[in-house]
Amino acid sequence: MTPKSQKHWTGDVGTLLRVGKGFRLDRVDANDTPGYGRRKRDSIDDLVAGADELSELQERLYASSDVSGAAVLLVLQAMDTAGKGGIIRHVVGSVDPQGVQLAAFKAPTPEELAHDFLWRIRGQVPEAGKIGVFDRSHYEDVLIGKVRELAPADEIERRYGAINDFEQELTDAGVRIVKVMLHISPDEQRDRLEERLDRPDKQWKYHPGDVDERMLWPAYMDAFQTVFDRTSTPQAPWYVVPANRKWYARLAVQSLLLGTLLDIDPHWPAPTYDVEAERERLLAT
Amino acid sequence: MTPKSQKHWTGDVGTLLRVGKGFRLDRVDANDTPGYGRRKRDSIDDLVAGADELSELQERLYASSDVSGAAVLLVLQAMDTAGKGGIIRHVVGSVDPQGVQLAAFKAPTPEELAHDFLWRIRGQVPEAGKIGVFDRSHYEDVLIGKVRELAPADEIERRYGAINDFEQELTDAGVRIVKVMLHISPDEQRDRLEERLDRPDKQWKYHPGDVDERMLWPAYMDAFQTVFDRTSTPQAPWYVVPANRKWYARLAVQSLLLGTLLDIDPHWPAPTYDVEAERERLLAT
Repeated sequence: MTPKSQKHWTGDVGTLLRVGKGFRLDRVDANDTPGYGRRKRDSIDDLVAGADELSELQERLYASSDVSGAAVLLVLQAMDTAGKGGIIRHVVGSVDPQGVQLAAFKAPTPEELAHDFLWRIRGQVPEAGKIGVFDRSHYEDVLIGKVRELAPADEIERRYGAINDFEQELTDAGVRIVKVMLHISPDEQRDRLEERLDRPDKQWKYHPGDVDERMLWPAYMDAFQTVFDRTSTPQAPWYVVPANRKWYARLAVQSLLLGTLLDIDPHWPAPTYDVEAERERLLAT
Repeated sequence: MTPKSQKHWTGDVGTLLRVGKGFRLDRVDANDTPGYGRRKRDSIDDLVAGADELSELQERLYASSDVSGAAVLLVLQAMDTAGKGGIIRHVVGSVDPQGVQLAAFKAPTPEELAHDFLWRIRGQVPEAGKIGVFDRSHYEDVLIGKVRELAPADEIERRYGAINDFEQELTDAGVRIVKVMLHISPDEQRDRLEERLDRPDKQWKYHPGDVDERMLWPAYMDAFQTVFDRTSTPQAPWYVVPANRKWYARLAVQSLLLGTLLDIDPHWPAPTYDVEAERERLLAT
């Protein structure tokens, strides 16, 4: 189903960006804008139109959640500076904050490390009616976890299956999972890190460790490829979103969320009380 | 200090709406628009201008929070339909979701009831750098708690002091507390409840219990008056915001938040690393 605000797409974004069999990350051009038929200068109007629709759909999702139990979970993974924060601010930020459940996963605490890697994740699964957003996620445990060898190889290997089981369980419970990798090129990252160093209002976002991770770029791309090979399932597919153009990435992620909500197709629920009787009670006060 | 976006105010909103000595809730006109010198049709532009400023100030607050430890806590209390949700959507919703920590307090669970009334509240105190929002709060325990006699009278009495001690503790820890009662008239509430009954997209928001609470209006106003008498302190004052005009209430709460942030006056922090050395490391990759 095509959202009415989505006429500017020349193709279905979900289909264009979904990681299917034989997908190769190294063949994706981070500068590309798959499916978008208009120009950058049109993209702001298109984002605003989509925002209104997303906001209304989320409210319907919430209103109907007592009956449906449905929720949405957007998982965001990316190299540093790829624009996770901008997605949260400009796409998720257009939804009523009461309908959003945001969880940012940083380096695990000692308490978190004392549990299975999914323990802290389970505590943040969105409630029915909400759009949950994971800013980083359980995938860190097979990305930096693998690249930095933070766990033994057989434990890393075990996790792919554990993740698929976990995501199947969520799906069975009514959570629609949308997994997004924002994909930038190494050159684009260098420019963005340099901008952070240049601007006094951005310097606080720069951490020397960012360059250490950057030097492991090829290992990270390998780890992402393995993630895609092992965990892009029909119930919880990955989408690789070219993100060198921030405006495109925002429109594309918005469109993926809209598509998911339209697929749920939430309706205003019928009242569970007698409307006329309540009107009489109210007017008697 | 007056925010640059706040030129439309003819007086300081904080001063005009603050609950001071001798305050009487029954003398507040819920239709009033204290301090606003323009018309309703101008209020949307004014809200947008304030939103941009609020958003930037929150980012500065976050950026500087490692050093300052500062946070803001907006406490929202009101009778049903007074517009808490609209404040969260239209005022708080203009801030980056990553900078907001929202907690909605509903009827306490058995686990929560097994603890002191502040236990569940403490778990939701905003982190440094964030704007926390309490949609209802510990004040429920001296509002519905008192009106419905959910606890013995001496326990209700004890709570006012416990609240003041708790809020002093938060203030000492760097949390600026802004407590807002959105004040509507009984007639306005009837109209809004009736609208919920009339509209298929609003019927889900109506609960028959709303009318039961409405019938206790005078008791609730008394309980609010006692709250103001006992807990409007210099470090955590109450503001009573006339809210029959939704546009005014939104502007006023936005202005209270802006005033609080400008009083904190957060600045971009100086880098904790050597910018030139990092630039060299980066460009060598």
